Amino acid sequence: MTKVTVFGTGSFGTALANVLAENGHQVLMWGKNEHTVSEINEQHMNSKYLKQAKLDVSIEATLDINKATHFSEIYLMALPTKAMREVATEIDALLSSKKTFIHVAKGIENDTFKRVSEMLEDSISPAHNAGIGVLSGPSHAEEVVIKQPTTVAASSKNAEVSLLTQDLFMNDYLRVYTNDDLVGVELGGALKNIIAVASGVITGMGFGDNAKAALMTRGLAEISRLGEKLGADPITFLGLGGIGDLIVTCTSTHSRNFTLGYKLGEGKSLDEALNEMNMVVEGVYTTKSVYHLAKEQGVEMPIAEALYSVLFENRPVTESVKDLMGRGKKAE
Amino acid sequence: MTKVTVFGTGSFGTALANVLAENGHQVLMWGKNEHTVSEINEQHMNSKYLKQAKLDVSIEATLDINKATHFSEIYLMALPTKAMREVATEIDALLSSKKTFIHVAKGIENDTFKRVSEMLEDSISPAHNAGIGVLSGPSHAEEVVIKQPTTVAASSKNAEVSLLTQDLFMNDYLRVYTNDDLVGVELGGALKNIIAVASGVITGMGFGDNAKAALMTRGLAEISRLGEKLGADPITFLGLGGIGDLIVTCTSTHSRNFTLGYKLGEGKSLDEALNEMNMVVEGVYTTKSVYHLAKEQGVEMPIAEALYSVLFENRPVTESVKDLMGRGKKAE
Repeated sequence: MTKVTVFGTGSFGTALANVLAENGHQVLMWGKNEHTVSEINEQHMNSKYLKQAKLDVSIEATLDINKATHFSEIYLMALPTKAMREVATEIDALLSSKKTFIHVAKGIENDTFKRVSEMLEDSISPAHNAGIGVLSGPSHAEEVVIKQPTTVAASSKNAEVSLLTQDLFMNDYLRVYTNDDLVGVELGGALKNIIAVASGVITGMGFGDNAKAALMTRGLAEISRLGEKLGADPITFLGLGGIGDLIVTCTSTHSRNFTLGYKLGEGKSLDEALNEMNMVVEGVYTTKSVYHLAKEQGVEMPIAEALYSVLFENRPVTESVKDLMGRGKKAE
Repeated sequence: MTKVTVFGTGSFGTALANVLAENGHQVLMWGKNEHTVSEINEQHMNSKYLKQAKLDVSIEATLDINKATHFSEIYLMALPTKAMREVATEIDALLSSKKTFIHVAKGIENDTFKRVSEMLEDSISPAHNAGIGVLSGPSHAEEVVIKQPTTVAASSKNAEVSLLTQDLFMNDYLRVYTNDDLVGVELGGALKNIIAVASGVITGMGFGDNAKAALMTRGLAEISRLGEKLGADPITFLGLGGIGDLIVTCTSTHSRNFTLGYKLGEGKSLDEALNEMNMVVEGVYTTKSVYHLAKEQGVEMPIAEALYSVLFENRPVTESVKDLMGRGKKAE
């Protein structure tokens, strides 16, 4: 039995808290939403994110970050990319010993273009940092919490952190593979959201499965190009954290990135579409980061560029799709 | 304007005949089914395969293989893998000059383990063979015939055949990329059907999107392993004829391979499931070929092996899935 603090009470954090509890570990969740925290404590549910799913009764939640910080030696950082730096800085100020950080955020910071593990490295002083890792892969929270078979990759620069992550989470419905390419696993998780939003856009416009498969194929190619330039092993993009996560995010109605894109494809504006969503849509912020990052790195990313023009330059979706489809005869 | 004979009146052959006619070419289709041939000629429809879709009125069809053979210099071979050798041999006996053969079959011959272009090379004497190519990719016929944007790869050992294929078929809703890895494009198209049947099986059993994405990811890995062993460039499996076709076949309800698997997953026997289908399901035969081929080549293909045991050894689907999921802790 190991104690684990889960920072964040969103869908994936909650589903993983439940996995940990079912695996016999003692879990304290921390969040800012009073209603959610009391619902977890009293109803053993998180209805905003996971509807009727029943959580393990041993899971407790708190609004008190000091209590959460001192509860355990292992932190699951299940926060949106945008909130990661602020919360990590707050945690660091409360620490007096080393902790292990496992994150599940899928984004790239705007302006700095940093991966989430780099944001954590910045925010947590070396005296408090026992290792940073990531858990990523095709894993809709809605399915994990009802024990649908799921596979994920655990990665870290420190192999002990990957093995610890595998030990903590693996059970008969959640298979955890270790992977030593932290850069690739983090980038795969973040970049696939761009393709998922784009996939939603063309589906919302009425395009079919042939077009979606083509988009995903070309999307994987541009993800791999940027990833390789940034130091990832291109083989990682063929794995669970790459094509696996890309597939599940682009084809499932559970995906909030796909859903946002779908609304845009139907003709809604970004503001309208975001207003209709109940959750943070990482792909929007990631598209902004990646558009500028690709320019800086001199990497051609036509899908990310087309989506950027729709999201941030008010280009009509029909025009952007024409840009993508109307190119000359080419070799593959 | 070029004359093209389409051998076969199935769904993809008909959809491509329509593309050719719309591109201004003169098309004669050959088939054995009297009803289908007269329906194409009189109603400009192929209702068995493409429901209500209206075909170009210029398309003609014939039961007369002699007439079909002498109609043109270019043959689109749109037949099931099982029928390819027999029809090609019949054609060869009628020929007195060289013709170009473009095929769209996605299988591997039982017993010989040959790709379709190799079957054609066997059947067509060198004096009648001006070149053999393949057109493959994520391209459900049901979408092509209603002009949904679609992308495919054209490949041949002879670059002129690839370029000819691109010129004949490309238009504003069908993008054709040339690709010089014939082995990879043919294997990608054939092997993905195994994963599509398996994907249908687990979906029919009630598994979710996380499991399906994992299956497709691991499926791509085993396809690439066998392909590389047989001389394909592994990069091809990341392209339209590889992961692109895999995605569309595993996630679309148009896919007959997926549909067959779904019925098996619901608990039907292979015979029952096949009886309920209206079409040839290539993945069944391909699984047989590949199971033996992988053994011969010493390549590990756990998904193909698990599916083989379900299809041909009456192993219950629940047992086969347990074989796949219940393995120890691993690195990716």
